[in-house]
Formats: sequence, C-alpha cells, structure tokens
Amino acid sequence: MRVSQLLNPTLREVPAEAEVISHQLMLRSGLIRKSAAGVYTYLPLGLRILKKIEAIVRQEMDVKGGQEVLMPIMQPAELWQESGRWDVYGEEMFRLKDRHQREFCLGPTHEEIITDLIRGEVRSYKQLPLLLYQIQNKYRDERRPRFGLMRGREFIMKDLYSFDRDEAGLDVSYQKMYDAYCRIFSRCGLAYRPVEADAGAIGGTGGTHEFMVLADSGENSVVYCPDCDYAANVEKAECKPQVVNDAMAEAEQQLVHTPKVKTIEEAADFLKLPKTAFIKSLLYQGDDKVFLVLVRGDRELNEIKLNNALGGFLSLQLASPEVVQKLLGCPPGSVGPVELPENLPVIADQEIPLMEHAVCGANKEDYHIVGIQPKTGIRLNQVHDLRTIIPGEACPKCGTPLKEARGIEVGQVFKLGTKYSKALGATFSDENGAEKPCVMGCYGVGVSRTMAAAIEQNYDEMGIIWPIPIAPYHCILVPVSTKDSEVVEATERLYQELQNLGIEVILDDRDERAGVKFKDADLVGYPLRITIGSKTLANGQVELKERKAGDTRLVSVAEAAQQVKDIVEKALAF
Amino acid sequence: MRVSQLLNPTLREVPAEAEVISHQLMLRSGLIRKSAAGVYTYLPLGLRILKKIEAIVRQEMDVKGGQEVLMPIMQPAELWQESGRWDVYGEEMFRLKDRHQREFCLGPTHEEIITDLIRGEVRSYKQLPLLLYQIQNKYRDERRPRFGLMRGREFIMKDLYSFDRDEAGLDVSYQKMYDAYCRIFSRCGLAYRPVEADAGAIGGTGGTHEFMVLADSGENSVVYCPDCDYAANVEKAECKPQVVNDAMAEAEQQLVHTPKVKTIEEAADFLKLPKTAFIKSLLYQGDDKVFLVLVRGDRELNEIKLNNALGGFLSLQLASPEVVQKLLGCPPGSVGPVELPENLPVIADQEIPLMEHAVCGANKEDYHIVGIQPKTGIRLNQVHDLRTIIPGEACPKCGTPLKEARGIEVGQVFKLGTKYSKALGATFSDENGAEKPCVMGCYGVGVSRTMAAAIEQNYDEMGIIWPIPIAPYHCILVPVSTKDSEVVEATERLYQELQNLGIEVILDDRDERAGVKFKDADLVGYPLRITIGSKTLANGQVELKERKAGDTRLVSVAEAAQQVKDIVEKALAF
Repeated sequence: MRVSQLLNPTLREVPAEAEVISHQLMLRSGLIRKSAAGVYTYLPLGLRILKKIEAIVRQEMDVKGGQEVLMPIMQPAELWQESGRWDVYGEEMFRLKDRHQREFCLGPTHEEIITDLIRGEVRSYKQLPLLLYQIQNKYRDERRPRFGLMRGREFIMKDLYSFDRDEAGLDVSYQKMYDAYCRIFSRCGLAYRPVEADAGAIGGTGGTHEFMVLADSGENSVVYCPDCDYAANVEKAECKPQVVNDAMAEAEQQLVHTPKVKTIEEAADFLKLPKTAFIKSLLYQGDDKVFLVLVRGDRELNEIKLNNALGGFLSLQLASPEVVQKLLGCPPGSVGPVELPENLPVIADQEIPLMEHAVCGANKEDYHIVGIQPKTGIRLNQVHDLRTIIPGEACPKCGTPLKEARGIEVGQVFKLGTKYSKALGATFSDENGAEKPCVMGCYGVGVSRTMAAAIEQNYDEMGIIWPIPIAPYHCILVPVSTKDSEVVEATERLYQELQNLGIEVILDDRDERAGVKFKDADLVGYPLRITIGSKTLANGQVELKERKAGDTRLVSVAEAAQQVKDIVEKALAF
Repeated sequence: MRVSQLLNPTLREVPAEAEVISHQLMLRSGLIRKSAAGVYTYLPLGLRILKKIEAIVRQEMDVKGGQEVLMPIMQPAELWQESGRWDVYGEEMFRLKDRHQREFCLGPTHEEIITDLIRGEVRSYKQLPLLLYQIQNKYRDERRPRFGLMRGREFIMKDLYSFDRDEAGLDVSYQKMYDAYCRIFSRCGLAYRPVEADAGAIGGTGGTHEFMVLADSGENSVVYCPDCDYAANVEKAECKPQVVNDAMAEAEQQLVHTPKVKTIEEAADFLKLPKTAFIKSLLYQGDDKVFLVLVRGDRELNEIKLNNALGGFLSLQLASPEVVQKLLGCPPGSVGPVELPENLPVIADQEIPLMEHAVCGANKEDYHIVGIQPKTGIRLNQVHDLRTIIPGEACPKCGTPLKEARGIEVGQVFKLGTKYSKALGATFSDENGAEKPCVMGCYGVGVSRTMAAAIEQNYDEMGIIWPIPIAPYHCILVPVSTKDSEVVEATERLYQELQNLGIEVILDDRDERAGVKFKDADLVGYPLRITIGSKTLANGQVELKERKAGDTRLVSVAEAAQQVKDIVEKALAF
C-alpha cells in the first residue's frame, strides 16, 4: 500500500470531543471518524486493525471446535418476552417497530436468538456439546456514549454460546474458552489478567471471569495477589473478616444523646471513638422488599455482593427518607438495629458478629446506643460478606497482601446454566430418553474495545505503539526524498523485497517533508520504520527504527528486509 | 470438517413457509434458519458460502483500488434530512429513537454517511479519485418479506462509493466497477447479464446497469439481443416507434355513440376496429400536477419512462375517478384528448403522432370520437418513448428481434453525479482553487441475494448444485461403512491427502446408512463426492461423482485426490 493512495487523514490537534487517549489517538491517526454519538465509521487502517483482531479471535474459536454462524442484529420482541428480559432490559436497549407495528430490538446480546435456534435443531445428547459463535455488531443505548470505542453504542463483539449435557460438560466448555481467551489476548500482544467477576445482570448460576487489559486509564478496579494467581474485580473479591479488638472498651448498653450528629464521622468525633467501633445501619429496598443492612463503620457496603447474597433483585437501592421515617420513625442518619419491626429482616456483614461492643443508631433522632453487643443484642437474620475489599488486605487464597491495578474489560466468560434453555425450552433427550434443558455458557470478546484497550496500554506522547500482531502494517518505508532517483529506487526495491517476504509494508510516497512523514508514522504507530536517505545509502545503509523501543540503528540495505522479517516473525510466533 | 461435528440440520420435507426454490433448499440443506419475517440466521455452511462470495467481491474491489471501510448501521436522521431523503423514503425505512428521543434509521444504503465523511476529509483534487467500500448489513422494511434471502429485511450488501473530480473521472470509476462486477459474477460461476436499467429512486443523472443472474424464477424481465451486446431491463429498453398503416381507413372526424363501452377492448369490438386504431388516454397525477397521457390502444404505458420523461415525481399515479370527473366531466373510461382545459398538458408516446386516423375518448360518457388525426387534431405538448417493449421487437442498436429472459438483480452500478455532494456540501478545490462538488457513483452487490440467486440458477430435484468457487466445501467423502476398518482407514488417508492438497473437504463420518449420506450430500450440493466402499476398494478404487454432470466414475484411490484437485483448480482459475 502507498500512503498517497490511502484515505488516512491525520490530525495534529487533539479533538475537543475526545476525553480518553485511545479516542484521541484513533481520531488523530485517522483510524475512525464519528458518525453519531457513540457510532463510528472505521477508516481503512482502523478496519485493518479490527480485522486482525477478528482473525486471531476466529482462529482460537475454531481451534476449540467453535462453529461460526451469523445471527440477526434485528431481533423480535417475542423471544425477549419469552426469556423475561424484554421488560427488564430498560433504556439501554434500542427498540423499534416495523411497518406492521411489530416490536424488535437491536441485539445487545444473543442468548435469546441462539437458544431459539437450538430448541429447533437439537433433539439428542448426541448433538452436544455445541459451541457456536459469531463476530458482529452489538447495540447498547448508553446514557452518555463517550470514550470512543471504549464505550460505544454500536460496537463489535465476538460472542460464543456453549450447549452441554450437564454441568461437567459446561465446565469443559468454560475451560476451553478461558484458555482460548488467554491465547487471544496474549497473541494480540497485550498485558492482561483474567479476574473473578460478578455474574451481574446476565443472570445464571455459575462462575464468571472477566479479562482485563491492564492500563492506568481502565474503568475497572482489580485486586490481584503478587504471590499466587488470585485476581478479582474489586467488587467481587472475597473479604476475610477482620477483628478489631481495641475498637472500644467494654461498656454498659445505654442511650446517649448525640445532638446534630448524623454521620459515622460526626459520631466518632463526638464520642471520641474510632470508626471501627460503629455499626453502619442502612435501610434498603430491593424491588418491593425492605430490609436493614449492617456493616462496620469504617467499611463500604458492596451493593453487588448484597444483591447476590439476597438472590438478585431487579432494582436495589437505599430506601427513601420517607420510607425510613414511616417504618422506623427517624431520619436515615439515626437508623439502628434496635427495636425493629418484627418482620424487618436484618442482613449483616460477617464482621458485625465479631464486634464485642459497638455503637449504633437508636432509631431516634439525635441519639445513639453505646455498648451494644452485636452477637447477642442484635437480631441478625443473615450474615454474609457484604463489603468491598481494600487493596493491601490479605489474599483469600494465600494471605499475601493484595495489590491493586486498573483494567479495561475486553472479555468475559460466563456460566449461564439453564436459565435460558429452561425459559425457552431448549431441551434434549439424554441417554435414557429423559428430556433435559441444555446447560449453557456465554463468552464475549469486545473486538472494537480490544482495539481501544490496546492503545490505552501502548502509546507515548508521539502516538500509538501497535503490538506487531495487530498493527495495521508491520513496517513503513519513509524515503527522505521523492526526487532523488537513488533513494526512490532503493525504496521501491525494499518495498518489493519486503512484500516478497510476506511483510505487511506501507510506503510513504507522499511529496512531503521527512519530518511530516516521521510524525505521521509515529502517530499511526507502525511498529517498524525504515528511513531511506541519500547519506546513509551512500554507505549502503538504511535506518531501522523500532517504534516501541524508540531506538534507531543503521542496517545494511541488503539485510534490512530480513531483519524486519525476523522481528515480525518473532512477534507473531505463539 | 467432519459432518458429525457440524451443525447442519437437513430436512426431507419442503417447509410450508418457503415459496421459492432457493428459500426451500436453503432451509432444507441447513444453510439458514428464520429468526423473524425476512430476518435470518446463517448456520455454519451458509456462512461459509457467504464468506466465499464476500472474499471474491473483496478481491475484485481491492484490485480496482477500492479501500474497505466499515460504516455504521445506525444512521442519524439529521444526515437524511440534509439530503432530503428522510421524508421521502417512506415505510421501507426502519426508524428508531434513542433514549434522548433523537431519531435514527437502520441504513438501507450509505450515500449520506459516506458523503458526510468525505466532506470532512477531502479538500483537494489531489485526494481524488477515491473508491470506498464496505460489506455490511442493510435494512429494508419490505411490506411482505418472503422468498428467503431473495427479499429479506436484513440482508448483506457490498456497497462502493466513488468520488471523482468530474464526469470523465466518474466514467472511469464506473467502468472499473462494471468490469469488476463482470469478474465477480463470472468468478462465482454464475450465468449473468449486465442490462441497461432505470435510475429509479436513488436519483442522480447518469447511467446505470443492473447485473442479472439469469434464472426462470427471476422477478425481473430482461430483453436482450442475440446478435449484439444490447440488453436492458424490460422497463428501461428503448422502443422504436412502429407505424401500423392499415389500422383504420381514412374517416371524417365524428362523435359516435358507444353505449356502455368502457375499455379499449369493448370499443374495438363495438366499432369493429383493431386496437391499433385507438388512442388510450389516461389522466395522471404526479405530486400536485395533473396531465393527460396518450399511448396507442395496444400498448402498455410504462410509468417509469413517463416519470423519467417528466423529471421525476415523488409520487405518480392515475388520477382518481373524482378528479377525472371534476376536470373532464366524464368517467376515466371516456377520457380523450379533445376539448381539454387549456392548462392541462398532453404527454404522448412517440407513436401517437404517427397515427393517420384514430379513435379516442370524447370526454363524454358513452361516446367516442372516430377519425381524429393526431398530428393535427390533438394538442401534443410533449412526445416521448413512453411504452414498455415487447420481446420480438427490434433491437435499438442493430434491429435484430429482441429475446426475453428472466433475471435476478444481484448488482447495480450507478452514476449519481453531484446530487449528494451538492446537498451535503462535499466539495474540493480544483487545480485553479475553485470549489467544486465531488462527482459520485455508487455500486452495490447483493451478497446474500447472490447466494440465493446461485441456487435459483443451479439446482435439480435432489438439491443444490453449487458452482465450485462458492461451494461450502469442494468435496465430500462418504465412507459406505463406519465399521469396516479398511474403508475407514482409506477414507481417513484420502481426507488427509485432500487437505494437504488445499482442497476444502468434508467427511461424512456419521453412523448413518449410505443412502442417507448420499441424499444429504446431494441436497447440500457439494460439487464433488467420493464414495469409499469395500467392494471397489478391493480393486484399489473409489467412486467419484460430479454433482453437476451427475455422472459417477471409478478412479484409482491413489489418484483420486489429484483428480479432485485438477477439477477444483480448473474451476477456480479465472
């Protein structure tokens, strides 16, 4: 390819619309252009990168026995009504009606479509397992689409669905995908970590891992153990309960007047006690149920853990001050686990029963109860791990203090179980002729987001630094002059030679100053650059620059192509 | 690939929902499944075929300098409002609103998006020409989606858009695409014809050709010349005016009472004259204009030609009986070109002024005028070619009688001119610094429809007969037994050998009767089948069947793979 013939409009200025670095650099290097908020056009170089990621994903899916299919983007509402998700999905789902007023959505995911397919085609255990995947657009109506391809409204995903006879089969399929995902992100040249994650809104019963590309700009907070392989989303990470023995001295339980004290901080100041001596009491509403939640005063309640512990509400939020007032007769800041209505469940974090003596709200404005003994003095209906971990706490596997990292979620593997197969009736006859629901898993790779994440992890002040396996071209040739016939001829020979060696090479044949070409090459982020100038050429040499290392060296013009090939081959080997 | 591991559910029965043969066979051979009316899932074999067509299209686009991009499916209404098509497109366009009530459509085509891109990126004549294409889903809300992939609501197209400096440049781009399309359909192994076509609703000023796959089931009627290269859509084909001298004898113009006569047929019967003696007078309404249209009594008015001749109305239809009554004081069956309101234009087919004497309506119920002399007796404001050609008429190029064929439109090349570049302001500076609008062309291939068209052209009572270049696999191996170890071993060796030769081979390793396997192989339509049985194997032979010719022959097991390779190579050479 010759740059003069390529639609690759580069920008020197940072576009005002772009907040994150990958978005800025994709616009500046001419990979994408915005067509609407969260909706992009991929220009030729951007599409090349996308297709390289897709090719890696496709190979790894095929190796594991995945069969590629292509499902529709436009999905009928009926299937989503069968699964129960049509009303649940909310504003994130794009919906439309056809000319006959039939309802459709633009698929945010394809569990319904694939389960509908399988219920029609699979009858016997002999047809299982099945691994079916596609690479396709997905749609999500984000409230604030931004960050370019990191959070678009139209984006590209690979989604694979596994169908097995039983949980043991699902475990096998899950492990296959877990392994494939490790290979995919390794082959893309990315630093990543699979982390234990929360099952979230997809539902299902089993485990799930998220694949995080590590980058300071990541939206996800991850904890990991430097000594073992434990890693988890910070919202998911298991907490060991900790005992704080010196929180407060033994004390008789008493009602204490605490005028104008509303928060734990204010109460700690007023009573001259550490926050670890307090019980934080929060009245929550999950769908139409109300319950009281307790965590230690210095802890953060983790709503995801709370919701999982209680079986999963569609909506979970703090009860309004009006509900608190009506139920407990006080404002939210004064709520405590005492003198409660009999039918109000109390859900406590596992650290609460370990507190010997504590302070809590009194359900009476401007009063606290000091000296309560949680183990005996509070009706604890359920005890769970309900708080969010803090980096530095012990690894739940080996005890080593955990470290923290930021990550961009680029993939997720997920055990769905029988949620969709039961809802839609995707069953099979087992060896004994009994009808059983298929046991399902789903596995996604954010293809367009992986492209963005690769940039967030690989850039400098000059531009992008593409890992060789997903670079738009491996090597760019920059002749310093387009007039000097010796330079031009040497360049053309090298161009041909590199192509013959199977190197993806692009030639900057534009009639521009060398400085402009260098800037564009660094901005777009070609991994290798060969500069052909008359001075070095007089000595039979050209300049080879590795974008990542940043160093340049003179190499013999006769050996340049082979050297490029060696570097590329090494990078592509896996 | 082994059939036992492939999701390829075949059906013996013809599904009731499928009217056309390609739809029936795609369902029966397990290539697609319906997800909603006009919306399909491609199963593994169907997707393989699709990808083969896509690969051929992509290669031919790249050879011509096309650059692949990927534009959004979800398109903002604003761009369509700028081009003026938002209100024009009507019910065929799927529309939706996002959570902020902003309007979008699902792209039926991408002129607006690409022109918006180009106006942002192209500034100078040096950046032109540009040929940009994508392969992607398109959306059209058909009133009655049916015929499977022949007329879907979600379907796959390749669309290329050319941007040139001037009409001469457009001519070059147009010819490139015309040539590329010829290569594409030839390489797919299809019998096709490029035909002159009507510009239709896309607008634009220049020429257009449709690429028709010839098949009896085609929805399009085509006329072509057996002696020269002239071929045209029947609606577009130019008509030579014909003189019928003996239609009626010379007669004095007079008002004749023709009680209860309403149609040309009835009038011809009543007056004992041939239909060629009559003038058919039709009051038409184009948008808010009314005019009278005249064609000879034996001719069919061609509304497309009429609309083109008059500059293109958004809506064009026969005036209602109420409008006719109000304007001319008679029912539609009695309309004639006499005693007309002064401001009512009369638009005549070119044969009208060639009629010496004729009969026409009198604008008076139950009366006709006999003996009118059109050349002098009728106010003819405009004369055009307004009728539809009849096969057997003279070729407009060489005079040979034209033949008729049925075709399936699988591609179209189209000169758009400056319609969109002017509307959206996609301009460039020419050599003299003057701002000029880009001159555009658009070029589409119906990728999924090509798959259907290939079947409509290539099938028999047993199933599909894939042309080798787009077959899901080149060759299927059918071992007659899965128990006989010699058969199994010979099969496995052949399987390996064919793969080593680069043949796409599929092995039917299912524990099924040979008859079932043969039926499935014929149904799916693999071009080559090798049957491995113990009897022939005892003589060192296997049976090779060519699906298209239908003949089977015994070949040495040692030479079988090479013979397959020779056949495949020959078919792929172009």
